[in-house]
Amino acid sequence: MTGAPGPTRMDLHHPAETGRVTPLWVGDRLDRFVAEELSRQRLGYRYALITDPRVAARHAAPLEAALRDAGLEVERLVFAGGERGKTRAAKADLEDRLFEAGFGRDAAIVALGGGVVGDVAGFVAATYHRGIPWVALPTTLLAMVDASIGGKTAVDLPAGKNLIGAFHPPAAVYADLAALDSLPDERLREGFAEVLKHALVADAGLATFLDDHASDLLGRRPGPLRHAVEVSIRVKAAIVAEDPREAQRRAVLNFGHTVAHALESATAYGMSHGDAVGIGLVVEADLSATRGLLQASEVATIRRLVGRFGLPTRVPPGLEVDGLVERCEHDKKARRGAPRVALLRRIGAAAGSAAGWTFAVTREELRDAFRRSQESPGG
Amino acid sequence: MTGAPGPTRMDLHHPAETGRVTPLWVGDRLDRFVAEELSRQRLGYRYALITDPRVAARHAAPLEAALRDAGLEVERLVFAGGERGKTRAAKADLEDRLFEAGFGRDAAIVALGGGVVGDVAGFVAATYHRGIPWVALPTTLLAMVDASIGGKTAVDLPAGKNLIGAFHPPAAVYADLAALDSLPDERLREGFAEVLKHALVADAGLATFLDDHASDLLGRRPGPLRHAVEVSIRVKAAIVAEDPREAQRRAVLNFGHTVAHALESATAYGMSHGDAVGIGLVVEADLSATRGLLQASEVATIRRLVGRFGLPTRVPPGLEVDGLVERCEHDKKARRGAPRVALLRRIGAAAGSAAGWTFAVTREELRDAFRRSQESPGG
Repeated sequence: MTGAPGPTRMDLHHPAETGRVTPLWVGDRLDRFVAEELSRQRLGYRYALITDPRVAARHAAPLEAALRDAGLEVERLVFAGGERGKTRAAKADLEDRLFEAGFGRDAAIVALGGGVVGDVAGFVAATYHRGIPWVALPTTLLAMVDASIGGKTAVDLPAGKNLIGAFHPPAAVYADLAALDSLPDERLREGFAEVLKHALVADAGLATFLDDHASDLLGRRPGPLRHAVEVSIRVKAAIVAEDPREAQRRAVLNFGHTVAHALESATAYGMSHGDAVGIGLVVEADLSATRGLLQASEVATIRRLVGRFGLPTRVPPGLEVDGLVERCEHDKKARRGAPRVALLRRIGAAAGSAAGWTFAVTREELRDAFRRSQESPGG
Repeated sequence: MTGAPGPTRMDLHHPAETGRVTPLWVGDRLDRFVAEELSRQRLGYRYALITDPRVAARHAAPLEAALRDAGLEVERLVFAGGERGKTRAAKADLEDRLFEAGFGRDAAIVALGGGVVGDVAGFVAATYHRGIPWVALPTTLLAMVDASIGGKTAVDLPAGKNLIGAFHPPAAVYADLAALDSLPDERLREGFAEVLKHALVADAGLATFLDDHASDLLGRRPGPLRHAVEVSIRVKAAIVAEDPREAQRRAVLNFGHTVAHALESATAYGMSHGDAVGIGLVVEADLSATRGLLQASEVATIRRLVGRFGLPTRVPPGLEVDGLVERCEHDKKARRGAPRVALLRRIGAAAGSAAGWTFAVTREELRDAFRRSQESPGG
């Protein structure tokens, strides 16, 4: 026995669906806890554990042992994973394997892995026999604080990311911080880019905490890490509960992401999502300042904060600005060709207007913001 | 102007989703009415009209003209249709064509056709950009009274029918009786098999009406036809509203269908769905009688009623009984190998028990019922 605290439970309410709640658990070494919970809830008659090779090697065996100890029947299905594995073909292949293994409508899915595993396994659950239950066991920081919260599942098309998918909230999310021990540094930073975003759009206290504990967090100190994860989950869950289908306020969670998607696409995904979001947060903060919503000093604070987490803060000078602007105009959030972005009114608060939570920005505004970023100091 | 009554509206309430209602319209020559409704509701910025070649040739042009007259932008997407067209590949192909045509998340889908068109187009709508709105314009009797009511969408797999899909209710259903004028007789009978089912499980008055007006209905007399369609829709909408996810009472709508699916599968879909349901209604009524739930005289009434609509009432003597029993055991509603069927306690009322609305039946009961059917008079 250690003195570590037991799992913390937060709730994500789904107001559009009568009475539905997704419990969000955060803790350390949760295999047995998950097995007990599933055994108690009887979500399914049999469980399909969907995961990718990297995660399977590290985390699948102890989880399966715990599930079997609790009397549950579980079968492992490994798929390639990675952003390239997020395809309709991967989904169809998993479906065929579920049928071959005899899973019926009384089955349930356990998604063990990062954002891609959750997106694909959750989407399989969304349409298998018109929807079976699933639980998410995120193993990356990004998946814990972002991807697994809110019920979005999807696959990519060559035309763009997340274009085919469903809203199908998991029956529960279990974020096991022990999984972060083996996470590569770059993927840890990627997660912090989203934690930073949550702080910037909705929680000034979290922003201060991140500023005060950046090196502890990058060093994976358990106490601060758990606090950052819990607060970040709470921020996202509150926003999603208010607007599950992204008709209104949930759009603030796209802060930084219009620019990030343009950067990822312009580099043919050579730039990582985390790095792209780091830059996106700073550029979209700058856009907020040109609209008079944010102070220039706050933009500087944001740039410094993003940099403290080892993330880049400016657009690489080699990228062509007009191409980036055009990619923003093709963003799926654009309406009739005009990109719409979330903006900040201060650190810890997104800007809203009578028209909603996103703002149309012009080609010129974007071009100027990209140029200023390329000319800014640091990198 | 004719003296024909205007469209009738019924409502399907979705109690699991706060405040959602699907209006179900029944009328005659609804093209302009549909255009006005869509123009008023502003479901989408652009409309994709998904249909099959047979329906396109007969009904697409006047509808498109009406939509354009109302100022709406519409583009036609034709796919092969037919039960063989209900595949993941057909869905993916429609998705790719929607993207190529520039449809974004502000698009909406108009599904014009029979059950297959509604199932596939509705499933495309369910997952395109994680769900866009759609409306159903059923052109067969089966689709009007059954397939388009209740939000089930799906494609088939080689392993079975409707195995991959979603619950994604249309924003509205417009049943235009004018479309039935050109429907082949066999497909009209197929629709009546489902109307009969609705009468048997929930509306004795409808059963009497069908008995009194069988020849009028087969002759497509507008007044009786409209009455039968409206009452049948009302029956299904009430049952679905009570149990949208088929956890409980909605299972009574499977009455006749465990046997029907076994017959379709045993004949490699050489037997039509309508014929299979006709036989299924009689065989499962007989099963109800062997359980002491239904009177033998009522089984005879049901056999006569099914026969009056030109549907077969007994299992073809050439089919091997043990094979049929085995197919029932592999039915997707089976639990741990035991087939579960809905039963009747009288004409117009499904049987319920403390355990729910379906009953486990033994291999022997099924075998005896199939044998009695093969030995029964008529065909």
